[in-house]
Amino acid sequence: MLKKLKQAVFEANMELPRRKLITYTWGNVSARDPGTGYIVIKPSGVDYDGMKAEDMVVCDAEGKVIEGSYRPSSDTPTHVELYRRYPQIGGIVHTHSPEATAWAQACREIPLYGTTHADYFFGPVPCARGLTDEEINGAYEKNTGLVIIETIEQRGMDPMHVPGILCANHGVFTWGKDAAEAVHNAVVLEELARMAARTEQLRPMAPPAPDSLRDRHFYRKHGANAYYGQGKDTPRQEG
Amino acid sequence: MLKKLKQAVFEANMELPRRKLITYTWGNVSARDPGTGYIVIKPSGVDYDGMKAEDMVVCDAEGKVIEGSYRPSSDTPTHVELYRRYPQIGGIVHTHSPEATAWAQACREIPLYGTTHADYFFGPVPCARGLTDEEINGAYEKNTGLVIIETIEQRGMDPMHVPGILCANHGVFTWGKDAAEAVHNAVVLEELARMAARTEQLRPMAPPAPDSLRDRHFYRKHGANAYYGQGKDTPRQEG
Amino acid sequence: MLKKLKQAVFEANMELPRRKLITYTWGNVSARDPGTGYIVIKPSGVDYDGMKAEDMVVCDAEGKVIEGSYRPSSDTPTHVELYRRYPQIGGIVHTHSPEATAWAQACREIPLYGTTHADYFFGPVPCARGLTDEEINGAYEKNTGLVIIETIEQRGMDPMHVPGILCANHGVFTWGKDAAEAVHNAVVLEELARMAARTEQLRPMAPPAPDSLRDRHFYRKHGANAYYGQGKDTPRQEG
Amino acid sequence: MLKKLKQAVFEANMELPRRKLITYTWGNVSARDPGTGYIVIKPSGVDYDGMKAEDMVVCDAEGKVIEGSYRPSSDTPTHVELYRRYPQIGGIVHTHSPEATAWAQACREIPLYGTTHADYFFGPVPCARGLTDEEINGAYEKNTGLVIIETIEQRGMDPMHVPGILCANHGVFTWGKDAAEAVHNAVVLEELARMAARTEQLRPMAPPAPDSLRDRHFYRKHGANAYYGQGKDTPRQEG
Repeated sequence: MLKKLKQAVFEANMELPRRKLITYTWGNVSARDPGTGYIVIKPSGVDYDGMKAEDMVVCDAEGKVIEGSYRPSSDTPTHVELYRRYPQIGGIVHTHSPEATAWAQACREIPLYGTTHADYFFGPVPCARGLTDEEINGAYEKNTGLVIIETIEQRGMDPMHVPGILCANHGVFTWGKDAAEAVHNAVVLEELARMAARTEQLRPMAPPAPDSLRDRHFYRKHGANAYYGQGKDTPRQEG
Repeated sequence: MLKKLKQAVFEANMELPRRKLITYTWGNVSARDPGTGYIVIKPSGVDYDGMKAEDMVVCDAEGKVIEGSYRPSSDTPTHVELYRRYPQIGGIVHTHSPEATAWAQACREIPLYGTTHADYFFGPVPCARGLTDEEINGAYEKNTGLVIIETIEQRGMDPMHVPGILCANHGVFTWGKDAAEAVHNAVVLEELARMAARTEQLRPMAPPAPDSLRDRHFYRKHGANAYYGQGKDTPRQEG
Repeated sequence: MLKKLKQAVFEANMELPRRKLITYTWGNVSARDPGTGYIVIKPSGVDYDGMKAEDMVVCDAEGKVIEGSYRPSSDTPTHVELYRRYPQIGGIVHTHSPEATAWAQACREIPLYGTTHADYFFGPVPCARGLTDEEINGAYEKNTGLVIIETIEQRGMDPMHVPGILCANHGVFTWGKDAAEAVHNAVVLEELARMAARTEQLRPMAPPAPDSLRDRHFYRKHGANAYYGQGKDTPRQEG
Repeated sequence: MLKKLKQAVFEANMELPRRKLITYTWGNVSARDPGTGYIVIKPSGVDYDGMKAEDMVVCDAEGKVIEGSYRPSSDTPTHVELYRRYPQIGGIVHTHSPEATAWAQACREIPLYGTTHADYFFGPVPCARGLTDEEINGAYEKNTGLVIIETIEQRGMDPMHVPGILCANHGVFTWGKDAAEAVHNAVVLEELARMAARTEQLRPMAPPAPDSLRDRHFYRKHGANAYYGQGKDTPRQEG
């Protein structure tokens, strides 16, 4: 069932250690099948070394396991909430990548300091508020998804224009039209986090880049007037 | 004698350079045989390149060499004290891993800034006090163990819930139920140290994560109500 | 057409990920053919994995495509302006290498703190001013080139003595007599940026190196009295 | 001539890029033949990729080339001064390794913050004063050696107990009984520099480690009462 999507989700998961986004199994990737709405996700706590494509777990849109010999990632309810709210999202990544997680632990959004950032994120990378004790003690993973959505909605963000978020004292979620794009955005976010931290070391009160520069770079890669890449839709390309 | 345990200790030692926890031979791993109480430990100052499983040294519970053509690690008396005091410890690691050692050199505990930390350590990673001149000039390595124990006891910590410690102006000790878990915790501790330092760079007076978040993450991975992983005892898994 | 130059430009581009100067396709290298004045440049948004030498695009001195099945890098107009103004430049690199880009995002020049710097750059690495909204909304990439030139001219710099520049809130351009030397200078600049940032962390108001030291190191490697290397022109050698 | 020593010096030089101490050819290693007093040193500005053992240059005790088809490293006069003054030195390394060079650029000695440091350096790693304009404009490389010696003498240091030094606004020299030990000390110094910088980030006014700890660690590895390693002279071993 969904053999091709399992393969894609498996490969996207394997990209996380290769890109040094995770230590051990500190992350997970999922994707949604556009036809059935089913979610394919990494099994919980299975070592990357022996993991195979067929170990990926299939859940329905509510997160109920449809197929798989393993339990799905314990973060599945977070993924479910994001897929439910945003039909345009086709893949989701969760990591504790160190540079981005440092911002999350500082409970700070990442300011847009330059064009590298603006090529992918139309504005700062937000940091969702910490959960209340009630939210933590209740359906914690589901509430994590709801707080992410709350942040996106409050800011009136288009989630495809700001394809990732920090969770206070926790880690990172990124997304995209599919699993590969979600991983791509996780790699980008880690790099932006690294450069922004070094920027602030060099200039503690550094101002963000001007809006005109943000607009220019974001829209030369996204939307109807994009002129980056080879004339197709090339949101992941630059150069 | 203890051939399987020697192999496990050997492999755990070899993991230290592979995980970039040590430069040259700046570290050692030991494990205790539950049956005999004997301790298997890396020989002192032997290069990792040519080292073999049979080079591991077997000591009794007091650290007296039982078998081996090499001298045991000069830190053996520290391991001995920890094993003696805590029967639940089955493996111990000592490193000078750079990010964690920086905290040790700053004589600071590592605050619990997020869930990555809380998944493994139920509270800050403590920093044991510096030894007095008398303790240093006397049985230095044994006293290092005693000061670690003093710190654990004064704080009323369960050593399996805080599986590692910093030693002021020195380095790191971690432990676990066996050598592999002790190394796992050494890798985790280095990563926590890195992220905590970056957190403070981004926000100098950063508050620690709320206790409710610490409890939630620690207990979803440890104890009777853990729901991480595949339903077995999975303290080393996440995802 | 220009088969050898395409090979050289291709190889120079492939050096960028190998030297960890770029993530994904965040960079580009070009070279100018001395005979025709044509510019050979990386195609826009083409993945490094499958890229071949014959994919390099040939443009004329105005940036009009002469040959190639791909669009040239969207930064081509910046390269064009630099080649037009400085006939001595034979190769140009653009990257978002993280350490140097942090200085660009901080809108700061890199002070000359030591001999490593002085071996390659005769003075600070300048940071070109940010573009105005009009410049950004107009011919953005061309204006980026003009602002770089403006900076060089205002400072009365010899571009071969300061073979690289930061662009405020953006990234890095370096150059040289050919593509390989331009990449060499990009590697050097990233390393200088790293060391200068650490220098300031250790000593916030660190003074620059004395002028006499700058002169000594720069001129022992460049110009008529150079005594570095093996007696030929060895601007890229030290040791 | 001196074929074995050339091989040793060649291998020691090749260790520099492997240990990430140098970018391109930013370093050099030499050794002295105890019998003849001749110095074998890396040729100037020769690429590491194609370099061979027989390319090493042989100089006499004054630095005059005795044998070799290449010019010796332009830093040869610095090596010559150190060999001349300290007969116990058998090998010398020069690098611009980034963490240590940052301290040199900050014109700061590296405080002894912990046992990793004390295992190798009996006290802070000194930073030699900057050269005067006269010294720079004169016999610069020779004067660099003289200023290193001046620093060692003024502090009354035993150069074998403090086997390395920073040169203000420049880089690093380390030494040892042979080329391999000198490289070993260069690797150690880079790591100490990294940890000390992070220590200060975590605690800006961090005090140095107590003298008793310094003495204990240094003398358990060096001298008559050393008990590290396997009972031979094991200054390069720990564990």
